[in-house]
Amino acid sequence: MSWLDLPADTGFGLDNLPLGVFSTPGTEPRSGVRIGDLVLDLWAWSHDEDHRTGSLNAFLARGPERWAQLRSELRGSLTDEAHRGGTEPFLVPVDQVEMHLPVEVADYVDFYSSRQHAENIGRIFRPDAEPLTPNWTHLPIGYHGRAGTVRVSGTPVVRPSGQRRSPADDAPTFGPSERLDIEAEVGFVVGTPSALGEAVPLRAFPDHVFGVCLVNDWSARDLQAWEYVPLGPFLGKSFLTSVSPWVVPLAALEAARVAPPPRDHTVLHYLEDDEHPWGLDITLEVALNGERISRPPFREMYWTAAQQLAHLTGNGAALRTGDLFASGTVSGPELRQRGSLIELSWNGREPLTLADGSTRTFLEDGDVVTISASAPGPGGSRIGFGEVTGRVVPPRHTLSG
Amino acid sequence: MSWLDLPADTGFGLDNLPLGVFSTPGTEPRSGVRIGDLVLDLWAWSHDEDHRTGSLNAFLARGPERWAQLRSELRGSLTDEAHRGGTEPFLVPVDQVEMHLPVEVADYVDFYSSRQHAENIGRIFRPDAEPLTPNWTHLPIGYHGRAGTVRVSGTPVVRPSGQRRSPADDAPTFGPSERLDIEAEVGFVVGTPSALGEAVPLRAFPDHVFGVCLVNDWSARDLQAWEYVPLGPFLGKSFLTSVSPWVVPLAALEAARVAPPPRDHTVLHYLEDDEHPWGLDITLEVALNGERISRPPFREMYWTAAQQLAHLTGNGAALRTGDLFASGTVSGPELRQRGSLIELSWNGREPLTLADGSTRTFLEDGDVVTISASAPGPGGSRIGFGEVTGRVVPPRHTLSG
Repeated sequence: MSWLDLPADTGFGLDNLPLGVFSTPGTEPRSGVRIGDLVLDLWAWSHDEDHRTGSLNAFLARGPERWAQLRSELRGSLTDEAHRGGTEPFLVPVDQVEMHLPVEVADYVDFYSSRQHAENIGRIFRPDAEPLTPNWTHLPIGYHGRAGTVRVSGTPVVRPSGQRRSPADDAPTFGPSERLDIEAEVGFVVGTPSALGEAVPLRAFPDHVFGVCLVNDWSARDLQAWEYVPLGPFLGKSFLTSVSPWVVPLAALEAARVAPPPRDHTVLHYLEDDEHPWGLDITLEVALNGERISRPPFREMYWTAAQQLAHLTGNGAALRTGDLFASGTVSGPELRQRGSLIELSWNGREPLTLADGSTRTFLEDGDVVTISASAPGPGGSRIGFGEVTGRVVPPRHTLSG
Repeated sequence: MSWLDLPADTGFGLDNLPLGVFSTPGTEPRSGVRIGDLVLDLWAWSHDEDHRTGSLNAFLARGPERWAQLRSELRGSLTDEAHRGGTEPFLVPVDQVEMHLPVEVADYVDFYSSRQHAENIGRIFRPDAEPLTPNWTHLPIGYHGRAGTVRVSGTPVVRPSGQRRSPADDAPTFGPSERLDIEAEVGFVVGTPSALGEAVPLRAFPDHVFGVCLVNDWSARDLQAWEYVPLGPFLGKSFLTSVSPWVVPLAALEAARVAPPPRDHTVLHYLEDDEHPWGLDITLEVALNGERISRPPFREMYWTAAQQLAHLTGNGAALRTGDLFASGTVSGPELRQRGSLIELSWNGREPLTLADGSTRTFLEDGDVVTISASAPGPGGSRIGFGEVTGRVVPPRHTLSG
């Protein structure tokens, strides 16, 4: 038990201890850990220089032994009354801090590992073909996104402009996206780098990955549909990717580990995970203007993050501290478990009706989307992930086509 | 004229002045400028802290006025006998230095802007379809690559392993690539960043882009063919991208500017370049084990780098100092102008015969590929780009499939 008076239902108890980067008015961004409704200033508390760099990267680069050591020190200080005096002065109410991007993102990779999502998108974008491409059940399909436009929760979502061509048009036009969408995802943050030319085996997943955040991979479906053949998504995704400010350590998710769903067939050796299943029972919630519209179940993902990491490095690609790889949209088998509006509204053909009577297909200016999540912790506790949120704003300048 | 005794045919005269990062034995990497067969140690010469950071990023972030100022100072010092004493001591023979990655790469984007290359690849990968997808003449197609595996010329090319499935196979197998290839490209290095949500117009190209390097985007065609539908190339490209160590300033390429080839039809407004044509008359040379096998003409590219930049930011994606975007494989209309082995050997069906009587389809272990280039400079001079080279080595560890 902590000497802190933690709220009974907090998702930020002693079993969680997520890290982030915060500032208070007039101070520089530094690392902190969330406990209940407070943030412990790690730099002030520890005087460890890693914690005043303004990103978690320096600490994450230290590797898993150091991660475990900090966790142990934090638990000691927050439970042992003898440490109260050396800890309590460095606690700041969470509503008095500004949160920053937790990690300086090195490379950003986005996977496509929900079978339900891939099938839904396949049916919508390629109605005359099999919904899953032949490779889908053999490897976790992914692509590189734009690391430089990964921003912290709360960053305004400037409606992107770009080229699109509807089937009825002879030629493309240029203008603000009319099909602005979300993708509710879970992201994994790499701490320990790897050498060029050396694959990281699946079992080494927790040696390299520090923790987990929530991701909203904002998507302009009209731009994406026109541009993505043959080299994949580009401007339809690169205008903004939002992440939650708190990175939940993998170590906090032991009670959430589950076996992934059964696979259609045996996978190649480097992707075999029978002994190291890294399915995670995280339940996401998607709220549009405060109203819950979906509860995507992460435990249904066909490919796990450990498999994604083994695949990503299977060709010898090096990892760097700060690499972020996201799961792809999380969609479950039920309608209200889908993680994107294109699926929820079936490409605009079946609008969502909201509580106020209005309807939505894609996002309108002023809309606020918030993704939150929780997972089971030890002894019936809950592990909270906080949230990633963003409000859609009109384009600042519109170039004419 | 310089007080230096420059070789008559040097591509590194006073009109070029490319920047790079070098070290001598026992010293830290720092910035230098190449002049003839010498390197001027910019840190020792100027005591500007930007030049001892070990990458060009700090200097590139200063923007175009500072770039022009350095160029002017360098020309002054290298021509005015009065500056000889303050300059000559800081010149090092180029054969005594080790070159390093010139830029800490932020985001890496690879375009696909040679019509000949796109048509060739289309015919090979999608023989039953039109070689160009309908979007190709409307926008410069591109995708994000892996910034963390961009390395300097000379880095060994560890043969990547991965999944592939030949048409005759029921299921994929895992192993070292059997179709390891090159892509001869030209890369553009961003100095001046841009704000999230704001497009960079085509005319602002030289305000943001500092200069040009050569790129070999090594490609494993068997991995690529199996993985790339529907989200584009991933592991087939992410194991290594090599760049030349010298970044040639755009300012050195004024005499090389040409109008790009005629387009099939009018392009959308933000891509119109009649007033700002940025075609560049750069001729590449590809050598395999010392024997020239191709001379790709960059002036034939359908989309220019200025158009690529306008497109890349058209959705509001921010630029960062150190962003690198490459042209895509440069291929001309003639057989011996193609910039990849898959085109030169028509997917292995028409092997190249080398001078020693051996043949090649794709790369064998031990093969060395070197890409070099030059462009016209003022008054009949030549602008050299140096070279990007790499030797193929066998996999360090082969995971069994």
